[in-house]
Amino acid sequence: MTVDLDATVSPSLTRDLLKWISQEYHDINGSSFQTLQSPPTPAEFAQIVHISRPVVIKGFQIPALKRWTDDYLRSKLQDQPISVAITPNGRADAIAADPGGKLFFVEPFTEEITIVKLLEALNTAEQESDDTSASYLQSQNGNIYSSRSFESPKDDPSEFGALREDVPSNIPWVTEALGRNPDAVNIWIGNSKGVTSIHSDPYENIYTVIRGRKHFTLLPPTEGWCLRERLYPHAVYGRTDNSKDLIVVPSLDSPQVRWSSVINPDLPGSLPPEAHPLHITLEAGDTLYLPVGWWHYVRQSGPTTIALNWWYDAEVRGMNWVLLNLLRGTGNVPSGNDET
Amino acid sequence: MTVDLDATVSPSLTRDLLKWISQEYHDINGSSFQTLQSPPTPAEFAQIVHISRPVVIKGFQIPALKRWTDDYLRSKLQDQPISVAITPNGRADAIAADPGGKLFFVEPFTEEITIVKLLEALNTAEQESDDTSASYLQSQNGNIYSSRSFESPKDDPSEFGALREDVPSNIPWVTEALGRNPDAVNIWIGNSKGVTSIHSDPYENIYTVIRGRKHFTLLPPTEGWCLRERLYPHAVYGRTDNSKDLIVVPSLDSPQVRWSSVINPDLPGSLPPEAHPLHITLEAGDTLYLPVGWWHYVRQSGPTTIALNWWYDAEVRGMNWVLLNLLRGTGNVPSGNDET
Ligand SMILES: O=C(O)CCC(=O)C(=O)O
Ligand SMILES: O=C(O)CCC(=O)C(=O)O
Repeated sequence: MTVDLDATVSPSLTRDLLKWISQEYHDINGSSFQTLQSPPTPAEFAQIVHISRPVVIKGFQIPALKRWTDDYLRSKLQDQPISVAITPNGRADAIAADPGGKLFFVEPFTEEITIVKLLEALNTAEQESDDTSASYLQSQNGNIYSSRSFESPKDDPSEFGALREDVPSNIPWVTEALGRNPDAVNIWIGNSKGVTSIHSDPYENIYTVIRGRKHFTLLPPTEGWCLRERLYPHAVYGRTDNSKDLIVVPSLDSPQVRWSSVINPDLPGSLPPEAHPLHITLEAGDTLYLPVGWWHYVRQSGPTTIALNWWYDAEVRGMNWVLLNLLRGTGNVPSGNDET
Repeated sequence: MTVDLDATVSPSLTRDLLKWISQEYHDINGSSFQTLQSPPTPAEFAQIVHISRPVVIKGFQIPALKRWTDDYLRSKLQDQPISVAITPNGRADAIAADPGGKLFFVEPFTEEITIVKLLEALNTAEQESDDTSASYLQSQNGNIYSSRSFESPKDDPSEFGALREDVPSNIPWVTEALGRNPDAVNIWIGNSKGVTSIHSDPYENIYTVIRGRKHFTLLPPTEGWCLRERLYPHAVYGRTDNSKDLIVVPSLDSPQVRWSSVINPDLPGSLPPEAHPLHITLEAGDTLYLPVGWWHYVRQSGPTTIALNWWYDAEVRGMNWVLLNLLRGTGNVPSGNDET
């Protein structure tokens, strides 16, 4: 459904209203997060989903956590080609400028390499500070299991099929609490160069770190207005002339992309004073419940950081979805290139 | 917290916004309700609470359902005084006019009578159409169990102590889903003259019919603006000169009461076309989950209609409470006496 608040309430009043809602939300909820020492029961997790605030969960044990050394990954995946995102700066799906200074929403160049090559690239890049490109395995298309796995497992081939035995296709306490199977289960392999720009997803997300550390900067859905979304033309990184250099290649037929113009919310002055970012670091073995609609900016540390996540479709019945639509606000988003 | 949207958004724009939200809510949710053939598990019920739409639940068995004949009630309660609401028209806690036509929010006259007298009054009144007064046991103050029962059961005396063995103090699948005990458990005894005017409560409500039938007219929290709330001076019904007649006695020191000016939402033309009332009839043995913030108007049929309800405090963390506050809208409610 297209949300056109403008027909109802003028953009400047929408802004005032969004400020009022975010203030009210913060007055009621503060900015803290809960840490559970062990996974919740289905009923406890359903309560957590109802509250819709981030929760760190300790003690969620899956085989991957003990098994996934470099040696193990190499021996399991062997020569299997793996789709890896290559960018000049570690930022896939992010705002970047072309040589003329025009801003684009740029998707990564995708390269198929073996796990041996990927681990090598991550280790080398971590040591050299001015490498010409960064690799981040972040295909996030259900690269371990997609929703097809639950209908007909044979029809869900995966580059990571050999690792499936180490990753449950669904998490019982989540599946029972939400009354559905995941829509996608993803693996993420990167190093400190790989950064995910701030965005929100229409999913309930369970995110668990297997190796290394991940650093999340989170904002509630009510503070989306602090992120100054803009419209950007779409582009992808490409290579010309067999050069290793990546250039921004505009996608001529793609619609503009609505994206936050805040490149790094951790940089002082990037957010207005009304924003209340939550900072959560996950160590290996830690799991984050990241509720639907929450904005997240994700960094990582460690030469080889590996994470898994389960995306479950959010409940669209009831009130929450209406509120999320309202918070997305007016469709009248300005261009990201007009201001510069 | 006092919600002052006016400082932010003008009343007419608030109205437009509320219309937009209610339209969006209706587009997403329609106006149907679900019926379960047996009580849900805690995790299923937690999902239902998250969706926050009414659900009818069959097969919730409690001892009261089989036991509560007139004879049983008389033999158990004997001479115990019971607080009964007496009104001229069957409407306790409702808008009524004084002889000069001025409107008040009027609370009932309370009389302490025995169960024998109450059952007699209900049976007689049901036959005579122009009885001078109506009785409705609706004290709704935790008259079976109050929250004290969960701290120190001995400190929770009740007019209905003798019936407690027939009524569970909490409902396991609700208590586990919400992670808390009820705030109040109430008994309601009335006949077709007793009507509860439309209002909403800050509770998750489980309402079960033991005898007779209850007819609910429900509106979602998003359609509260259709109910035209107004401010009314407070009054109680009183008797003068040992007469049986009840008169409206203004309460001089009470603040004005904010209440819907819609006396009977079932009357054609009472609601604007944007309202989508849900009509749900509960037979004996049927249970309604009535979510927090939902507006309800309640009628009953049968010479002696008996119901029980469990009120659980609603979750105030998260987003739902913020939205409910927003939907209550501006504090700038006009007087109910200015328009007449
Ligand atoms: O791990 C990352 O870099 C990003 C994760 C993310 O955006 C997600 O799980 O939705
Ligand atoms: O049964 C009735 O008359 C009213 C019930 C009610 O308002 C409630 O349970 O909140």
